Amino acid sequence: MVKTKIAVLVSGGGTNLQALLDAQREGILTDGEIVLVIASNPEAYALTRAAQAGVPGVVCSRKELGSQEAFEEAISRALADHGAELLILAGFMSILSADFTSRWPRRILNVHPSLIPAFCGKGFYGLKVHEAALAYGVKVTGATVHFVNEVPDGGEILLQKAVEVLPGDTPEDLQRRVMEQAEWNLLPQAAQMVAEEIRREKPNERL
Amino acid sequence: MVKTKIAVLVSGGGTNLQALLDAQREGILTDGEIVLVIASNPEAYALTRAAQAGVPGVVCSRKELGSQEAFEEAISRALADHGAELLILAGFMSILSADFTSRWPRRILNVHPSLIPAFCGKGFYGLKVHEAALAYGVKVTGATVHFVNEVPDGGEILLQKAVEVLPGDTPEDLQRRVMEQAEWNLLPQAAQMVAEEIRREKPNERL
Repeated sequence: MVKTKIAVLVSGGGTNLQALLDAQREGILTDGEIVLVIASNPEAYALTRAAQAGVPGVVCSRKELGSQEAFEEAISRALADHGAELLILAGFMSILSADFTSRWPRRILNVHPSLIPAFCGKGFYGLKVHEAALAYGVKVTGATVHFVNEVPDGGEILLQKAVEVLPGDTPEDLQRRVMEQAEWNLLPQAAQMVAEEIRREKPNERL
Repeated sequence: MVKTKIAVLVSGGGTNLQALLDAQREGILTDGEIVLVIASNPEAYALTRAAQAGVPGVVCSRKELGSQEAFEEAISRALADHGAELLILAGFMSILSADFTSRWPRRILNVHPSLIPAFCGKGFYGLKVHEAALAYGVKVTGATVHFVNEVPDGGEILLQKAVEVLPGDTPEDLQRRVMEQAEWNLLPQAAQMVAEEIRREKPNERL
């Protein structure tokens, strides 16, 4: 079986990357193989996790590269070098242009820490999502894995899971619970779904 | 114990009213008593359910009464006649003005068939909510019980429950599942919570 080559794009601690690496080891993510980790930030601990798992890591920093064009050019080159077929944004805090995303239709996955369409779109990222959910007073939130297109958080939804908000929750409490109860399960599941679909579409699999 | 007097406002089949009546009989709604059912429509089957449970029913039709003012005046009179302290909108399809709702702060409950803030506000009622959820492609929806204020579906949230969307669901399938798995449980729970709160605030309960 020719596995689907996956690149994971990260910016921080990389717990979602770890969930994907664990899923690969545990036989949950069987049709895909993580071949590359791209970090938008040279300090990202996710790079250490990649190294520990024997996965090559590359830094593509928007700031260091000076322009969005150079940034996306560097990402594209790294993806091509490693033959990536599926991109997973796992806490990737940099913006990708419509020009970039349109070259990867239904081939970029993102995990968002709310039940889209609640608390999503421009300005809703990271802890801000949970702050907004608590400020609104919702009793249920969750996470969403969706395809990335030119609309922020607007691509087709693959999987969603609800998570309870508890009395007294801080944004940090809620962030942690949503990760543990939703993101770390949904993302490997979705990765497997799409990796399998891509693998089945390959000509050599049709023989 | 002096129970909190509840009026239930309905427009149609009255399955949420039935859930409240059942909860009263089964000892789930213990601090409140349904003393009145107001129907916006003389044909509402909910009136039959009220009669079967021995609860007085009154029709207040916006159309027949001619103006919003006369409509709300009729409702207010019926509420006063029966000493209602808590209003529950259970599939009530008529609009109540800010003038009306401001006279009942934290005393009007509504059940909405989505996880607010998704698929709520102006134009989102009844089956349209589920049509919108399916069109968006969400995998999780649910129901919300909230206090009613001058903002459509904008009052404080009391309870929410998530419900799975299944492949092939029609709006009617989803509506039924959200009722069965969420609305019929949440509404009696919320009614009990608020009925208890009101009961505790009464002077004769403080002796």
